[in-house]
Amino acid sequence: MIYLTRREHFNGAHRLFNKDWSAEKNAEVFGKCANANWHGHNFDLYVTVKGNPDPETGFVMNAHQLSHLLKKEVVARLDHKNYNIDVPELQGVIPTIENVVQVIWKWVSPHLNGCELYCIKLVETENIYVEYYGD
Amino acid sequence: MIYLTRREHFNGAHRLFNKDWSAEKNAEVFGKCANANWHGHNFDLYVTVKGNPDPETGFVMNAHQLSHLLKKEVVARLDHKNYNIDVPELQGVIPTIENVVQVIWKWVSPHLNGCELYCIKLVETENIYVEYYGD
Amino acid sequence: MIYLTRREHFNGAHRLFNKDWSAEKNAEVFGKCANANWHGHNFDLYVTVKGNPDPETGFVMNAHQLSHLLKKEVVARLDHKNYNIDVPELQGVIPTIENVVQVIWKWVSPHLNGCELYCIKLVETENIYVEYYGD
Amino acid sequence: MIYLTRREHFNGAHRLFNKDWSAEKNAEVFGKCANANWHGHNFDLYVTVKGNPDPETGFVMNAHQLSHLLKKEVVARLDHKNYNIDVPELQGVIPTIENVVQVIWKWVSPHLNGCELYCIKLVETENIYVEYYGD
Amino acid sequence: MIYLTRREHFNGAHRLFNKDWSAEKNAEVFGKCANANWHGHNFDLYVTVKGNPDPETGFVMNAHQLSHLLKKEVVARLDHKNYNIDVPELQGVIPTIENVVQVIWKWVSPHLNGCELYCIKLVETENIYVEYYGD
Amino acid sequence: MIYLTRREHFNGAHRLFNKDWSAEKNAEVFGKCANANWHGHNFDLYVTVKGNPDPETGFVMNAHQLSHLLKKEVVARLDHKNYNIDVPELQGVIPTIENVVQVIWKWVSPHLNGCELYCIKLVETENIYVEYYGD
Repeated sequence: MIYLTRREHFNGAHRLFNKDWSAEKNAEVFGKCANANWHGHNFDLYVTVKGNPDPETGFVMNAHQLSHLLKKEVVARLDHKNYNIDVPELQGVIPTIENVVQVIWKWVSPHLNGCELYCIKLVETENIYVEYYGD
Repeated sequence: MIYLTRREHFNGAHRLFNKDWSAEKNAEVFGKCANANWHGHNFDLYVTVKGNPDPETGFVMNAHQLSHLLKKEVVARLDHKNYNIDVPELQGVIPTIENVVQVIWKWVSPHLNGCELYCIKLVETENIYVEYYGD
Repeated sequence: MIYLTRREHFNGAHRLFNKDWSAEKNAEVFGKCANANWHGHNFDLYVTVKGNPDPETGFVMNAHQLSHLLKKEVVARLDHKNYNIDVPELQGVIPTIENVVQVIWKWVSPHLNGCELYCIKLVETENIYVEYYGD
Repeated sequence: MIYLTRREHFNGAHRLFNKDWSAEKNAEVFGKCANANWHGHNFDLYVTVKGNPDPETGFVMNAHQLSHLLKKEVVARLDHKNYNIDVPELQGVIPTIENVVQVIWKWVSPHLNGCELYCIKLVETENIYVEYYGD
Repeated sequence: MIYLTRREHFNGAHRLFNKDWSAEKNAEVFGKCANANWHGHNFDLYVTVKGNPDPETGFVMNAHQLSHLLKKEVVARLDHKNYNIDVPELQGVIPTIENVVQVIWKWVSPHLNGCELYCIKLVETENIYVEYYGD
Repeated sequence: MIYLTRREHFNGAHRLFNKDWSAEKNAEVFGKCANANWHGHNFDLYVTVKGNPDPETGFVMNAHQLSHLLKKEVVARLDHKNYNIDVPELQGVIPTIENVVQVIWKWVSPHLNGCELYCIKLVETENIYVEYYGD
């Protein structure tokens, strides 16, 4: 069993706030991340699949096809977008990386053949990232 | 003469568009960067000062004081902000890194004593950055 | 279950030597790391917690609170210190990153609520790091 | 139990193609990687061993000895080599990183004493890497 | 005047040897880099242009157009190629990064309008790079 | 004219304090960097030479010989050392990177033939570095 990881990039805007809370409570919990006029990040996405290399290609999965899949299913939906407004699957949740990474899992996992989605890692800054293993 | 560089971080949202142009022309020139609902970046700021080390301290400038100055004059104004809306000095210009870096120069240069501002470098993504030397 | 990681920095001095050994044996085993006048490193600390995101915040844990906790419990004790002299919890052991990481675990783990400490990673140079999962 | 990781570098040339396929099918599957005149990469190798620190040294394994072992068993065989031609253990397989990493495991694992080989990670570009845990 | 830098990647194979020298002298001067069966690298290319931002766009040059130009004029010629064989402009010279960077300058400089080529930086490994300013 | 840069590493301990000052004034100016029991860093050294490539080798200077020179003249003197105690050329000055980089220049510049020393860059943390051009 080999684990293959592919990195992609995208950037976007978001705002962390709970609409059921007062402005004061949002500021207290989310600090500057609650800024009404948004802020944003460059995100690094690492997607890991696992499987046995195909004897004919030596590949767990063709990394260029994995890249193509991620650009189509993830980057096209999240790059240069506002995660509070522009992404239907993120409506009704606070667009933290904890919640975004679970949506990315749902977009990617149905499209893999011959290998299995193992981990999605989403890096928000050089100091903060999350990992999700699907459950 | 020694050149001392200090790095700081901030992140923000912006939108690249020219209000005198049609939506079509904005999309043609700025592509996804013209998204009406904003996008954002993590920015790395590198500020270089030049001078002769003080014999009593060995410092061109105390790097912690330089950091303090940059946090007060730059990070406080740009971190978790929308550069089209929240920053008075950026009103009336398109908030590209070319224009942001010139504003940062104006904020920092009056506050240096015993050394001189030499260069401001602003990194928007791992693939794009600008440098400005003050003229 | 989501895994959230926060990075912090500190630097310090140490010396690797076993007081029960001769200078020759220390030099043979630890090489330049046994230098009597110390040497030092920039350390990168990655702390990973795991839990379910809180529906009201979208957070496994507020990353700014995690940073505050790490600065108080770890960075304040290890930054700009000598690990052979200045850190009571490291007396009586050789201050390798293998031993330092176990002490960091003890400092951090009692202070987490609503999520669980999963991994502490300590990077000594770009070529060497350790990871500890608590047992 | 502590996990210790050591990084090493090497670079080499390879070509991805299946000798039982037509040039057309090789181009279709492997794209530019099938270029008849080779291409190459800088590879970063991360080797992780696990064990309990020796009370006399504080080490899971002496990182300099691990480096020496990796330079002798891996770097000497792969650095500045052509993986389709110069490496006997890679003859008969397509030299993808999936296949190279399994050969590295066989070279390293017999030489560890007092700790156990846990993972080998091989990074081909900043966007692609594989990990192997030995089965 | 603002300096704008764009990064691109490519990888390739090469061999450093002087055809007028004996195998012994080539090995003495170029070491492992003279390996007859080639070796290769991931190359990072940084291209810096200088100019005054256009008031209508805020750009010295549209970074996406600069990327497109570099992909067409440089990456298409050097990515997944053998620099001793596949690149007509490198025939008759030893394909060191010192020589490659001068060829890249010739490919890029005729295609800039409204700004000027300032520097080309080519990174061969994390430890070695060259810069060329056009004369 | 081509500029060639080579990176090397070393680590060491130091303490920033002025022996003519009180403990209070040292703490006020140097903060934690004045800790009596030392602290330390991983240092990255970038040395840039300039010259015309030799037509017979394609090299401004053989990067492996430059590495060998730097290991002999710089790394051997600074790696795993205490810069307040172990380095004769640093006695009588405060061992800031501003002062260390000037000493490195004196060690390296006499040993170059066929090219010229252009810049020495010394990186103390990911946030602080200095550059020196020899005057």
